[in-house]
Amino acid sequence: MRRQERKPQRLYELVAQFGGEVLGEESTQIFQVAPLDSAKSGDLSFLTNAKYQHQLETTRASAVILDRESAGATGLPRIVCDNPYAYYARVSGLLNPAYAHSPGIDATASVAASAHLDEDVYIGPGAIVDAGAQIGGRAQIGAGCYIGRDARIGASSVMHANGTVYGECIIGQRAIIHSGAVIGADGFGMAMDNGRWLKIPQIGRVMVGDDVEVGANTTIDRGALDDTIIEDDVKLDNQIQIGHNCFIGAHTAIAGCVGIAGSVRIGRYCRIGGSAMIIGHLEIADNVEISAGTLVPKSIRKPGKYTGVFPISDHEDWSRNASLVRHLKELRSRIRTLEQQHKIRSNK
Amino acid sequence: MRRQERKPQRLYELVAQFGGEVLGEESTQIFQVAPLDSAKSGDLSFLTNAKYQHQLETTRASAVILDRESAGATGLPRIVCDNPYAYYARVSGLLNPAYAHSPGIDATASVAASAHLDEDVYIGPGAIVDAGAQIGGRAQIGAGCYIGRDARIGASSVMHANGTVYGECIIGQRAIIHSGAVIGADGFGMAMDNGRWLKIPQIGRVMVGDDVEVGANTTIDRGALDDTIIEDDVKLDNQIQIGHNCFIGAHTAIAGCVGIAGSVRIGRYCRIGGSAMIIGHLEIADNVEISAGTLVPKSIRKPGKYTGVFPISDHEDWSRNASLVRHLKELRSRIRTLEQQHKIRSNK
Amino acid sequence: MRRQERKPQRLYELVAQFGGEVLGEESTQIFQVAPLDSAKSGDLSFLTNAKYQHQLETTRASAVILDRESAGATGLPRIVCDNPYAYYARVSGLLNPAYAHSPGIDATASVAASAHLDEDVYIGPGAIVDAGAQIGGRAQIGAGCYIGRDARIGASSVMHANGTVYGECIIGQRAIIHSGAVIGADGFGMAMDNGRWLKIPQIGRVMVGDDVEVGANTTIDRGALDDTIIEDDVKLDNQIQIGHNCFIGAHTAIAGCVGIAGSVRIGRYCRIGGSAMIIGHLEIADNVEISAGTLVPKSIRKPGKYTGVFPISDHEDWSRNASLVRHLKELRSRIRTLEQQHKIRSNK
Repeated sequence: MRRQERKPQRLYELVAQFGGEVLGEESTQIFQVAPLDSAKSGDLSFLTNAKYQHQLETTRASAVILDRESAGATGLPRIVCDNPYAYYARVSGLLNPAYAHSPGIDATASVAASAHLDEDVYIGPGAIVDAGAQIGGRAQIGAGCYIGRDARIGASSVMHANGTVYGECIIGQRAIIHSGAVIGADGFGMAMDNGRWLKIPQIGRVMVGDDVEVGANTTIDRGALDDTIIEDDVKLDNQIQIGHNCFIGAHTAIAGCVGIAGSVRIGRYCRIGGSAMIIGHLEIADNVEISAGTLVPKSIRKPGKYTGVFPISDHEDWSRNASLVRHLKELRSRIRTLEQQHKIRSNK
Repeated sequence: MRRQERKPQRLYELVAQFGGEVLGEESTQIFQVAPLDSAKSGDLSFLTNAKYQHQLETTRASAVILDRESAGATGLPRIVCDNPYAYYARVSGLLNPAYAHSPGIDATASVAASAHLDEDVYIGPGAIVDAGAQIGGRAQIGAGCYIGRDARIGASSVMHANGTVYGECIIGQRAIIHSGAVIGADGFGMAMDNGRWLKIPQIGRVMVGDDVEVGANTTIDRGALDDTIIEDDVKLDNQIQIGHNCFIGAHTAIAGCVGIAGSVRIGRYCRIGGSAMIIGHLEIADNVEISAGTLVPKSIRKPGKYTGVFPISDHEDWSRNASLVRHLKELRSRIRTLEQQHKIRSNK
Repeated sequence: MRRQERKPQRLYELVAQFGGEVLGEESTQIFQVAPLDSAKSGDLSFLTNAKYQHQLETTRASAVILDRESAGATGLPRIVCDNPYAYYARVSGLLNPAYAHSPGIDATASVAASAHLDEDVYIGPGAIVDAGAQIGGRAQIGAGCYIGRDARIGASSVMHANGTVYGECIIGQRAIIHSGAVIGADGFGMAMDNGRWLKIPQIGRVMVGDDVEVGANTTIDRGALDDTIIEDDVKLDNQIQIGHNCFIGAHTAIAGCVGIAGSVRIGRYCRIGGSAMIIGHLEIADNVEISAGTLVPKSIRKPGKYTGVFPISDHEDWSRNASLVRHLKELRSRIRTLEQQHKIRSNK
């Protein structure tokens, strides 16, 4: 029941396209990719973690992708290369090309007269392209999507069904935007005035670079005054919230359920674990890794891995120990008192 | 202003349908269910927690549901049964049947020629059923929903407005899928290759069993290679994220805002509290309870309740104590030193 | 590329409308608002935090808004007032009025015959207004929105594209509801009965007051028996989950990704930080501030700021120290033993 499988590939055809070297029978036919433990005949598998090396002995894959150090670990037909995981990604992409709708505008779509559609665009059923919006060539706007006034969607980008891009926001080329994502809603800005909130107009935009993926139900708010910026090749999982005026540097990857408050500046090549939370107005350097569930309360200036999560226990253990965290200062002063008493006694 | 109330029921009619025993006037008429403290004449209330037993004295309910131990705690007409909370659920279901649209395909819906609709299906305004999709008998597809290519929705399932099911995903019978839910978006899979991310095609599906409820804006990602599986009678609250290749065992209930990373295997009859987070590639045994807000960083092999949340304090207390967590190892070695000094001295 | 800028304002025109006093050239023309550091000629800037006072020396703004204490801190034309941030909000609102669609019902919208629309309503492409629903005067229902049976949307409210309001729910006047928000889905209520879950009908509504803003992809569940209530001037950021039967007091502001379980009662003028989580059946007093990322496990009866988050460290530090939290009770008893030994020895 998987997506329709494509024309099989022989190992020599794969290395001709993607590099690497074949060891063993180079005309082995590959129909699909699969993990070592569930692969069957016709599948190409891959070893990316030495801890699964024992699976090479029992796998039913017809061939495997390995790095140079593991090249001798099996007698199966194999492709040896520098980065087996990336190699697997390329082969899988070849065998499983993303489904694309045929170009055309569905009869039930609403496209404003002043909108501009480049060549070979697909606009799905019930999708709306508002006044002045521009849709780049070969872009796919899924069923029920809304593209706001003067927004721009770059060439070859794909919006899955029921996504929303507010007016004036700009999405780069080859973006993939999943269902339910909302790009460009107002940032959370208001001023307290005599006991009532006054809304602060959010007049910035969201600017999304090229090759960005935005997960399902992720939200990226427009800037208050300046723009919210997502650089090229940023990858966002589902249910992420990015506040107004954030800047996310190129190639940063953010896992699901992360919350990023307003005006946070995140560097390039960062990795933020699921459900992490970053407080507003901070800066995170390039190449920072934040562990899942960690709250970041202040700027991080140096690359590295940062963590701050409470250890899990069975509930009774937790009840016994956790509340003592609130008495750490007292415990420390009791230790100090003992140390002083010891010193006094030693000096006697 | 509540939903239209249905034909009243007499207590003897209820026990004829649902079992239990009437004490007191068995022809008492019941129009609606209500909590003890806000019930009025004509309402049937229920006692499920001894701490509310005093409310039996003042309630204006016409009758109550009790367990056998509490049967004598009131002189009101009452139904005595084993599980008053479940009994209340059944009576409420009888008095407040879910609203169902009349079967039919709205003129503004888009149903592909190759889609298959069983008898008595409802397809709401602006809903889209894509090529090859199958909709089971009596299913209700709400306004603006998108059902992707070759997806299947089981008989008697209900999708509320603006939900999305991606291509090839399969939903069982009697499912309830709330608005904004997204089932089958791509999992978060990519490989770093020479400083850029390569997308890994997500070629698995989402397979959802029978009697599953999916909350508003919850997302369940399709598998990378194999399928993501949600077994029968799983109950998911709102804003949950379930990563690719997860397996959620039957009858497990997950509260709002929970994040579950990829390839997590959760057993049957688990209960996961709100905003909990489960790291990828873990296994959780059957009958495990995770407290709200807890991060689960490793597999849990034994049933039981697990917790790991930082205790709340007023902010000043927290400032004084929390940072000392970062010095626990130092504090422990100061204690050790004192203990050794004590031993030496004792041995003198 | 910002929203079209409106007719410029002179400083004397602003104080005529909004109060305050001009110092310096009162006919200075203002085209837009901007932060001190990125303002250009024609912009009005503002100082709301003394730490940015040095920027007054280098800003290219044509004028600034200041409080009385800072009135002498610059020689630029300036407006002196009590609350510069609120003043800036008002000026920005004047210069950047929210975009409004022209009244009218799009040809692709579906409006039930029994729905009632007041004067000057806008119903966007593909939007659905179900049977018996009422839309107040000048309300704007964005593209793809769904308004359920017998729901009511107050006058001058704005729903952005692809939002959902379930049947019977009531939204007050001047609400702003962002894309993907879901108001009125079923609360998470079920009873375990012989190993299977029984759904408990959720027969309450959601009642939203006037001047409420609801962020993108935020969800507010309908009540189980009574209603879920959001009072006037409550401000909700994106991706918030509010469980059934909650009560949120007037003027409370809640940041993104917060989860609030069922039957929580939150007071007026509270501020809840991002990703906080509040357990069910609690009460939070008026004027309580909860820090970001904090889990609230019990009621808070007194105003004040409350925090409970684990401090962040580099990962190695965290590994060394965090697990010791699980031994705090043991560490405390070792301290006690040492103290007793000291006492015994001192008494010798």
